[in-house]
Amino acid sequence: MDRHLPPAGRWQLAARAQRMQPSALRELLKVAERPDIISFAGGLPSPYALPVERLQASVDRILRRDAIGALQYGPSEGYLPLREAIAARLTRQGAAVSPSQVLITTGSQQALDLVARVLVDPDSRVLIETPTYLGAVQALAQYEPVFEEVPTDAAGLLPERLNEASMRNARLLYTQPNFQNPTRRTLPLERRMALASLAIRHGLPVVEDDPYGELVYTGVTLPSLLSMAPGNVVHLGSFSKVIAPGLRVGYVVAPETLMIKLLQAKQASDLHTTGITQRLAHALLTDGEYDTHLEAIRLRYRAQCALMLKCLSEHMPEGVSWTRPAGGMFLWVTLPPGIDSANLFEDALSRGVAFIPGASFHAVSPKANTMRLTFTTATPSQIETGIARLAQAIETRLRKTETCLTTS
Amino acid sequence: MDRHLPPAGRWQLAARAQRMQPSALRELLKVAERPDIISFAGGLPSPYALPVERLQASVDRILRRDAIGALQYGPSEGYLPLREAIAARLTRQGAAVSPSQVLITTGSQQALDLVARVLVDPDSRVLIETPTYLGAVQALAQYEPVFEEVPTDAAGLLPERLNEASMRNARLLYTQPNFQNPTRRTLPLERRMALASLAIRHGLPVVEDDPYGELVYTGVTLPSLLSMAPGNVVHLGSFSKVIAPGLRVGYVVAPETLMIKLLQAKQASDLHTTGITQRLAHALLTDGEYDTHLEAIRLRYRAQCALMLKCLSEHMPEGVSWTRPAGGMFLWVTLPPGIDSANLFEDALSRGVAFIPGASFHAVSPKANTMRLTFTTATPSQIETGIARLAQAIETRLRKTETCLTTS
Repeated sequence: MDRHLPPAGRWQLAARAQRMQPSALRELLKVAERPDIISFAGGLPSPYALPVERLQASVDRILRRDAIGALQYGPSEGYLPLREAIAARLTRQGAAVSPSQVLITTGSQQALDLVARVLVDPDSRVLIETPTYLGAVQALAQYEPVFEEVPTDAAGLLPERLNEASMRNARLLYTQPNFQNPTRRTLPLERRMALASLAIRHGLPVVEDDPYGELVYTGVTLPSLLSMAPGNVVHLGSFSKVIAPGLRVGYVVAPETLMIKLLQAKQASDLHTTGITQRLAHALLTDGEYDTHLEAIRLRYRAQCALMLKCLSEHMPEGVSWTRPAGGMFLWVTLPPGIDSANLFEDALSRGVAFIPGASFHAVSPKANTMRLTFTTATPSQIETGIARLAQAIETRLRKTETCLTTS
Repeated sequence: MDRHLPPAGRWQLAARAQRMQPSALRELLKVAERPDIISFAGGLPSPYALPVERLQASVDRILRRDAIGALQYGPSEGYLPLREAIAARLTRQGAAVSPSQVLITTGSQQALDLVARVLVDPDSRVLIETPTYLGAVQALAQYEPVFEEVPTDAAGLLPERLNEASMRNARLLYTQPNFQNPTRRTLPLERRMALASLAIRHGLPVVEDDPYGELVYTGVTLPSLLSMAPGNVVHLGSFSKVIAPGLRVGYVVAPETLMIKLLQAKQASDLHTTGITQRLAHALLTDGEYDTHLEAIRLRYRAQCALMLKCLSEHMPEGVSWTRPAGGMFLWVTLPPGIDSANLFEDALSRGVAFIPGASFHAVSPKANTMRLTFTTATPSQIETGIARLAQAIETRLRKTETCLTTS
């Protein structure tokens, strides 16, 4: 055998690739998708909330009237009428946004990737809440920053406790101010104002990720950070939760100086987002029924959330607590300190229920006794059955823990 | 004024973003898209080659039968039936590919991005032909490699002149073996075999980018590098040139060890490719009419290519030479040494014709007296008028150059 012949496929990987870890959460979500499982795991919209008929009618119209536009190469910035419609909607909601500040992305996951690519060097500092959206951690981690946890309480991040040096040195602060994934926390108005002021004062870029802002069930929608500090905020939005995730249409709003770089990164990444789905998002956003559609989704999710809360009250043993969402898709459950939700996952699965263990959402200092429950995907009867079974699994494990404590 | 208040938007960019350059080519392509211009510039398929009616029928069927599948979140690997169909087609073409080796990407541009992300560190060495596909250079450049030009002649790269140390140290060699963009060169069989052997011997990953392989007009399709060195080749394919670019559906075939990392990079990049367009690509690939559709495209492009060659022979002044493509979308034109095609671009534009100056395609050592002409996009009558006008522009510039030489 030729001694100089290296085994095929033993290639030298980039440092970032060597650090990439297989996602345990991904494997767990695969299990949760088994048809015999009631899943509160994935962050999916309800299949009944997808506007299938309106999409059918729109795609037919698009391919009759604008087939070449939809099927040829398109501009990297995105479909101009969609950028205009997004800018107009955000402007009506209180932020003065021009279409030239809107870049259409392949889902808001790509917006995270592009923002990280343009702002993050290896070992640069990124301020982040914990727990937080796992996809953001994954996107940012590809660019090898050092994550620094920002101080939070039950209502979200605490601007007055942000460290000045951290703010000056950080490349960005990442936050979901509305119905945060996974905790459903919403940042109060006065904290938004304080954060916006600090961002301006210290030149801190704030990445405001807002996939759930339109899913508000009680109370009012608070002004965006973008509206308060337009020169310092990169605002991310998505049609995944309000139209359909499979479209892969999201967007990023950024000051024009940054937009130039985001656009170059976008071109290198995938040239442009799919022509058909950009036009579908535009059609639904502008056909005059969008707000009616949103109201129908809100009504559905509000009811499902209320039902899950009711079931939790009825079935959960003492010592278990949970958040009461004013919007979004998730409940955040805290178990008694001795219970590791990763172990509980196996018990629940054997009873036909799935959720996501809370430790998955922590970029730093994971908390094992927490879990995320999605209330949007399951049907009402699945919610009733699933929560009852989950409560049984928790009770059984609590008894085991008590027995261990007693016998030890 | 607060001395501590930095101007909004003066953020610290990542080093890679500081190095990103605005694309002159992009600006040039915008000009070329003016309706009064006959454009041989963009690498676009003919609007008449887009299978609009079949796509209309398919999308209607998809949204009637599999709406939830198409509209919900999907697997990051891609739609399994599409991965299976791609693996089957590549296997029929001589490479033994399993569906688990196929990752669906948002156009093959994203495949380039993911491959670069997984294999390229700052300052690592990348072997590349010159001239080459500009989008590949852009994607790779984001990961800050040092480009090293591989020796080539009129038939493509010269394996016997590849430097051994370079091959051992390089993170990858990038090549388009079929109807290369921009030169339309096709790597001869014996060179493919030599390159495959060297890749295996030196553990060199070869990125075989093959967007044009199906667009063959004369002669046979040569075996892929993938079929010769499956453990060392990352094979990139696309439906942009054979179905529609606006779908943004491409794929990467890689050994399974590398696939794991590509998949993690894909998840972080955009979670998954659009559900609707993946199903559209699958529908067209498997409805039994795909080869008929391809044959119709080949017929159209073969005729357009022949027409452009005829017009070039009729109109071009002495000293201008061009390639005679056996496939693909482009002709590569070499002008007399004194002529800079970037200057010629302005003259041609004033006569209502656009092309791409050849210097744009060189990662290293640009050659100013070259240009790329696309023969697929324009209509036959536009080709006739456009080439005549372009020849006039070249003649005028040649006379100017001669006058300068005589009077100087």
